[in-house]
Amino acid sequence: MGGDHAPAVVVAGAVAAAHDLDVVIQLVGPTALVTEALARVADTPGAASDWCSRITQVEAPDVIGMDEAPLAALRRKPGASIKVAMEAVARGDADACYSAGHTGATLMSAHAAFGLLEGADRPALAVLVPTLAGQAVLLDTGATLDCRPEHLRAFAMMGAAHARVVLKLDAPRVGLLSIGEEPGKGNELIREAHALLSAVPGLTFTGNLDARDMFSGSVDVIVADGFTGNVTLKVGEGLVEALERMLKREVGQSLASRIANWLVGRGFKRLKARMDAGERGGAPLLGVNGLAIVGHGRSDARAVRNGIATAVQLINEGLVGRLKGALRAG
Amino acid sequence: MGGDHAPAVVVAGAVAAAHDLDVVIQLVGPTALVTEALARVADTPGAASDWCSRITQVEAPDVIGMDEAPLAALRRKPGASIKVAMEAVARGDADACYSAGHTGATLMSAHAAFGLLEGADRPALAVLVPTLAGQAVLLDTGATLDCRPEHLRAFAMMGAAHARVVLKLDAPRVGLLSIGEEPGKGNELIREAHALLSAVPGLTFTGNLDARDMFSGSVDVIVADGFTGNVTLKVGEGLVEALERMLKREVGQSLASRIANWLVGRGFKRLKARMDAGERGGAPLLGVNGLAIVGHGRSDARAVRNGIATAVQLINEGLVGRLKGALRAG
Repeated sequence: MGGDHAPAVVVAGAVAAAHDLDVVIQLVGPTALVTEALARVADTPGAASDWCSRITQVEAPDVIGMDEAPLAALRRKPGASIKVAMEAVARGDADACYSAGHTGATLMSAHAAFGLLEGADRPALAVLVPTLAGQAVLLDTGATLDCRPEHLRAFAMMGAAHARVVLKLDAPRVGLLSIGEEPGKGNELIREAHALLSAVPGLTFTGNLDARDMFSGSVDVIVADGFTGNVTLKVGEGLVEALERMLKREVGQSLASRIANWLVGRGFKRLKARMDAGERGGAPLLGVNGLAIVGHGRSDARAVRNGIATAVQLINEGLVGRLKGALRAG
Repeated sequence: MGGDHAPAVVVAGAVAAAHDLDVVIQLVGPTALVTEALARVADTPGAASDWCSRITQVEAPDVIGMDEAPLAALRRKPGASIKVAMEAVARGDADACYSAGHTGATLMSAHAAFGLLEGADRPALAVLVPTLAGQAVLLDTGATLDCRPEHLRAFAMMGAAHARVVLKLDAPRVGLLSIGEEPGKGNELIREAHALLSAVPGLTFTGNLDARDMFSGSVDVIVADGFTGNVTLKVGEGLVEALERMLKREVGQSLASRIANWLVGRGFKRLKARMDAGERGGAPLLGVNGLAIVGHGRSDARAVRNGIATAVQLINEGLVGRLKGALRAG
């Protein structure tokens, strides 16, 4: 029931996933609404029809709106779809939960239902950002806004384990996001975290990453507190939007320029697709004892399908078990 | 003596400023080196020669290197050019100090020589960033890396006073950089600062600015702690560089594409020039009882000349007095 276009796009994405992935999906929400959405997908001309046996429903009477205060809403609505879904995973009735709904409510429900992994005092959202060399894992991007140095230490260890899985790297290089490369550069949090990360056994810690080099591809994992990580991501998104408009103005109005603008527009479209693909339809929440995938509120059916595909991959790779192992090794 | 190409570009920039601005310049550094650099500029064919009466020298035997730890270096080198220059301003022998040198050493020297304004517990570096609507003042961008809410309150008041001077606005709109617009969004620092800023008399506080909207032009002053502000600036710089390269790849290799790439390259060049012009050759340090302009270490002669022009403008506008007044009014 989550996201700006629920339940229609979530149901459509689930149907697409049931069609082309090896997965069984439980749709959690008010049954009447979900049934209606399913019927609408089934009526679409050319729609796949091989999903009926792979999609079931779980009744959850309540929905948390995108604008509600999550803590109060979760207390007031014990039958909220996100809570029912996370509890199904915690009970073992499902292997992972995907949601495009209220991020705060999703994080809180996952935390409450799964509990934290030993060694992870706080959860972290891990997204993939495009770099000149490919992709890098950036975490945390908003789950833990106020961090202590030991939180960043756990984020580094989990980020490296995650990069082994999703980037297929043996020894991912881990950098600490800061305002210069030297160990003394940064605020108090970063300076203390630098000392802690330097001492983690088995971690390929490359020191501070100057924020200017974030997209250079010089590291595979970028560690930040959730506030800085989220600001970074949003500044990046906002700048890409603004640059496209500024650039089209700068390129000018001649015929050649108009052709160039068309090509620039196409280039930006591909770039943005690459950034979206980078998100893979959703970001896993690391540090909790279960698998939760957080999708964007603005997700379309394709993004929902991709988010479910990410869940399937991370289940098959045993991500949560590998995170446990990484935290134990540190 | 500051910057990556000192003293040559600093001297060349000073000569250019003495040529086309109504200003008298004291060059501070080891006299032998500075004299040599001046002679080289004078020997350049076509060089202006009307500056002789407007440039004098002040001996300072020591120089702080770009890689030195600033606090220790300043203690070890009482005759450091940056210290001698700031003290000349504090004594009233000059109206402002411009430096392209070690930022940390420049900030510390200004702080030590000038002291802080009443009501400003910490200094803040204010830069101009380009937006879709023009420009906005972003502060702090690195002078105070660990902030308390009351520091952000003073930054907001000083930022507004600065925007009145440099953006010629009567009632600049002030936003608090965060991860969403709602008052509850952000880390502890931002949530507490939001409450403080809401209560400042005469401040046009528009609430939280979602980092995604940073370049939209919806505010004239963007308030952040020095760490977040500096990361933001560097992520922006790094992304512009990376995007240009990614975009050229995405646009492709056909003949039309190669023409487009040339136009894109020209567009990016203009954009970068606009961003540089935005820095106006240097950023003033707000909150100290004197005028210090911090230039980029990579400044060329034109940037040095522009930094001096910024100093002249801010002297003529009486910036420091207006900051004092703004802090008193709050």
